[in-house]
Amino acid sequence: MFNLLNTLVENNKKYGKEGKLAAYIPALLEANPNDLGIYIVDTRGKEYFAGDYNKKFTIQSISKVVSLILAIKDNGRENVFKKVDVEPTGMGFNSIVNLEASDTGKPYNPMINAGAIMTSSLIDGKDVEERLKKILDFLKIVTNNNDIYVNENVYLSEKETGSRNRALAYFMKSTGVLDGDVEEILDLYFKQCSIELDARDLARFGVVLANDGVLPWNGRKVIPKDVCRIVKSIMVTCGMYDASGEFAVNVGIPAKSGVGGGIIATVPRQYGIGIYGPALDEKGNSIAGLKLIKDLSDELDLSIF
Amino acid sequence: MFNLLNTLVENNKKYGKEGKLAAYIPALLEANPNDLGIYIVDTRGKEYFAGDYNKKFTIQSISKVVSLILAIKDNGRENVFKKVDVEPTGMGFNSIVNLEASDTGKPYNPMINAGAIMTSSLIDGKDVEERLKKILDFLKIVTNNNDIYVNENVYLSEKETGSRNRALAYFMKSTGVLDGDVEEILDLYFKQCSIELDARDLARFGVVLANDGVLPWNGRKVIPKDVCRIVKSIMVTCGMYDASGEFAVNVGIPAKSGVGGGIIATVPRQYGIGIYGPALDEKGNSIAGLKLIKDLSDELDLSIF
Amino acid sequence: MFNLLNTLVENNKKYGKEGKLAAYIPALLEANPNDLGIYIVDTRGKEYFAGDYNKKFTIQSISKVVSLILAIKDNGRENVFKKVDVEPTGMGFNSIVNLEASDTGKPYNPMINAGAIMTSSLIDGKDVEERLKKILDFLKIVTNNNDIYVNENVYLSEKETGSRNRALAYFMKSTGVLDGDVEEILDLYFKQCSIELDARDLARFGVVLANDGVLPWNGRKVIPKDVCRIVKSIMVTCGMYDASGEFAVNVGIPAKSGVGGGIIATVPRQYGIGIYGPALDEKGNSIAGLKLIKDLSDELDLSIF
Amino acid sequence: MFNLLNTLVENNKKYGKEGKLAAYIPALLEANPNDLGIYIVDTRGKEYFAGDYNKKFTIQSISKVVSLILAIKDNGRENVFKKVDVEPTGMGFNSIVNLEASDTGKPYNPMINAGAIMTSSLIDGKDVEERLKKILDFLKIVTNNNDIYVNENVYLSEKETGSRNRALAYFMKSTGVLDGDVEEILDLYFKQCSIELDARDLARFGVVLANDGVLPWNGRKVIPKDVCRIVKSIMVTCGMYDASGEFAVNVGIPAKSGVGGGIIATVPRQYGIGIYGPALDEKGNSIAGLKLIKDLSDELDLSIF
Repeated sequence: MFNLLNTLVENNKKYGKEGKLAAYIPALLEANPNDLGIYIVDTRGKEYFAGDYNKKFTIQSISKVVSLILAIKDNGRENVFKKVDVEPTGMGFNSIVNLEASDTGKPYNPMINAGAIMTSSLIDGKDVEERLKKILDFLKIVTNNNDIYVNENVYLSEKETGSRNRALAYFMKSTGVLDGDVEEILDLYFKQCSIELDARDLARFGVVLANDGVLPWNGRKVIPKDVCRIVKSIMVTCGMYDASGEFAVNVGIPAKSGVGGGIIATVPRQYGIGIYGPALDEKGNSIAGLKLIKDLSDELDLSIF
Repeated sequence: MFNLLNTLVENNKKYGKEGKLAAYIPALLEANPNDLGIYIVDTRGKEYFAGDYNKKFTIQSISKVVSLILAIKDNGRENVFKKVDVEPTGMGFNSIVNLEASDTGKPYNPMINAGAIMTSSLIDGKDVEERLKKILDFLKIVTNNNDIYVNENVYLSEKETGSRNRALAYFMKSTGVLDGDVEEILDLYFKQCSIELDARDLARFGVVLANDGVLPWNGRKVIPKDVCRIVKSIMVTCGMYDASGEFAVNVGIPAKSGVGGGIIATVPRQYGIGIYGPALDEKGNSIAGLKLIKDLSDELDLSIF
Repeated sequence: MFNLLNTLVENNKKYGKEGKLAAYIPALLEANPNDLGIYIVDTRGKEYFAGDYNKKFTIQSISKVVSLILAIKDNGRENVFKKVDVEPTGMGFNSIVNLEASDTGKPYNPMINAGAIMTSSLIDGKDVEERLKKILDFLKIVTNNNDIYVNENVYLSEKETGSRNRALAYFMKSTGVLDGDVEEILDLYFKQCSIELDARDLARFGVVLANDGVLPWNGRKVIPKDVCRIVKSIMVTCGMYDASGEFAVNVGIPAKSGVGGGIIATVPRQYGIGIYGPALDEKGNSIAGLKLIKDLSDELDLSIF
Repeated sequence: MFNLLNTLVENNKKYGKEGKLAAYIPALLEANPNDLGIYIVDTRGKEYFAGDYNKKFTIQSISKVVSLILAIKDNGRENVFKKVDVEPTGMGFNSIVNLEASDTGKPYNPMINAGAIMTSSLIDGKDVEERLKKILDFLKIVTNNNDIYVNENVYLSEKETGSRNRALAYFMKSTGVLDGDVEEILDLYFKQCSIELDARDLARFGVVLANDGVLPWNGRKVIPKDVCRIVKSIMVTCGMYDASGEFAVNVGIPAKSGVGGGIIATVPRQYGIGIYGPALDEKGNSIAGLKLIKDLSDELDLSIF
């Protein structure tokens, strides 16, 4: 497996040149576009890796998976899906058109920004600090890593440049679907997007989902099985922005990407996969990371279809 | 299994009352809204059934799966996906908005009407008759049933009331994405939608997809494995109209529905499932059929996630 | 006045080079992009002209004014505006989005293609021939010219390349707002767009509208005053495609353009103006014609505002 | 004239019952839905009035006319129209769809909320206070009334409930079309909407526009003629929300309404008209006020068409 991963990383590293670093905040431009790394954990806890698997990056949209899980934990799935739909949409992740056009007035799904702002708002807690702590604590458990924290620099940049997210949140406030203080909700959202981790952390989180919520390293159940399934199905239909359909066809693995360059993937009953490659394609997915996971899926026959 | 199926059919029959028959053509109104049947074939060829599994109905949108497969067969997947995307859309199956809004000008995916009109147009053949014969021949093989034919009555009604489909086709013609004679393409499309079959036929077609293209009853390979996977992944992301995301979350099986009341479902490496229940919910899916397949998925733990 | 018109034509002729002939049918490409002419008639019947005022061209979208008037004549304004709204839209003249997005399901206004197809459909007559004759007869009266006819060559091209208009018409048919045989309605529409005339004809038609429906040359009342006002107000809000707002600001005269290169303008209680300049800007308006009428409006202080 | 106005007010008062007070802020619900008043000033300075012409109300969207004028004064028309288009749109005044759908990324016109937020942002001044003072000073001059002020109560409510406007502003910020501090811009916008005045004030402002920018009471020129024309033309195409087209057809007078119940109208070279009737129709226009001005236009033949 190590040999295979090394070969795949080497073969796909070159695609970094064809992508672009996320440019909307300066901090993200400091990454090295040629970096590419992968980490794999199987459901018995065995770990494999290659390339830049231990470079740190911010979780960005992959945090949408976390806030969805915690929102369901705190409110029940039924209450969450009263506030956010689970339908994919062919439009971009920060489209406002697709909020107004929806018959229900609800965000289309929890993997677009509007939907994730909604799920963040549903995490219980007396203030932003307490709710952020829940997110961090959850991540520490599923990554088996206590060193999970917010990158303050990125957070401040997110906050400063977050006009589109403010527009989305105020729009939902104006239609009555979003409850609570908008600026507080956004503060939590910007913080969760700025959490820093590496490919190993993602792989471990991924294998917990693959393993129906049970931590492979100690057998402890931390996420209900049905919640894992919901999350994996939403990853397939909506996880890779408006390239989700293509990814399902070509790769066939539940996955979620972030503009920090990370991809988390979860092969039911088999593997968790974490990938890092900060150069992005025009849809916001890691360009080399996509190639890498496609090759891996082909090699190991990982498609769920 | 027979007992289970009988129980599930009995339990879910009542939901037919909450739905409505498709009303856009008179022929479809002749169905009995209380009908409900299911047929299952496993990958070793064993068959199980309950309820109204042998009632005939028209295939309608389930034919989109067939024209997609034949279009790929005749043109290669790459050429097909130059003409139609594979991204899900949160809008209705006959929306024109989602043609105009697409950056590429292509239909969003092969499971909406515009996309299926496109794949139909890509099936080779010197005239409508020859192309229809290819569709029927294909269905005869994958259903192991020579008695597959077009319901002339339904076809004539489709043709007469097909203004929305005409609008979609002429729109694609006007943007240059659709080649060929529009009225001929539509004629084929109306005919393929009017093919009559039953739940058993769908179950057998489904198990061929589940079995990576190999007929369980004689081991013959009739669809390439990668085409089966493409089809199953598109069924998950786009198969149940704008309820596809919800279906993935709640049921987790690749499936495609039609307004004739049919559902085809395919559990990779396990089962093909055919369901018939003509009363529809407001999104156009069999209302009792959806409940039935959800219960079945729960009972047999069929979710791919 | 003759001197002024000659100067203005000379000054603005050069803009033809910056525009493009309508290219969607070959016949329109035969025009000379450098042509520019103007014809003015005042409400006492005096006529002035300069440049290529006697070149023939097809009326195209200017025929929308005629079908609106005849639809009101045959059905009453109330019945017409049950079928088509009078609200401007910021989108292109052949958008389908703006049909689907309308709450009422009606075309936004009679000056976009969908709206004009609707008003054409409302003209009474036992067949296309009889309804076309009404259009031609009306034009003969308001232009004081018996030599008004359909350019068969252009008509056949329109018919052949009319996919977008077919899409619009079938879409309206599918939503139930358009009654009658779609192909017949389109046939009339293509014919009315292909009527050939010159700038003098437009100027005379324009002065009849300016004169509240009375023919200046014989005092005969041929259009009710309130219909003239409706038409002029719709010209201001919707007459120049999606540049109508800008035209109102910069020129301030009710006007309607066509992709054949014609502009009809009508200064209430003062003038009718016909302009011909076949090179179009990207919105479909005569590029030199727009400059010419702006200069004229400035010189003679014609803005109604 | 006094008799006519009294009769028209009496005849149309009853329509107040069919409308609704603006409900989005509590302060507006204190109005009496049966109130109806009108004030007219001619270009020689003669004044006529009837009904509740001296009831105070907040200017609301009518302030959009003021910020447009001041934005042009401070930046030149060319620079303003680089930032906001002048095309009407068939959608509601606070639609976000019509921001995203615009090719230019600019608000469609200065009479929708997004456009007015833009023009407010273009008024020069070192802070909100100074810019508000310019708005108030301008209004004091054109109303010949020094008693023009912000209703603090309404302002605070606007500020508190302004989520939709915040969404619009942050959206424009995110696309780069809106410069400056969003919260400051919105503060000014909420304040200008909360300016209190009466029908007489509107009538006087209206007659200044009718009189090409010259104050009838002292002959002083306070707005350039071309700016008056721009404003009047935009009022016709966009002034009455998405009922602008219908208003042009039925009434034919440049006008702008506000949800406080006011309507300002301006008949070029003849009259300024101020109307107050706080019960609104579903598009946000004074329901009795619309009927009143239609009758007035019919009686005095005021249509500009």
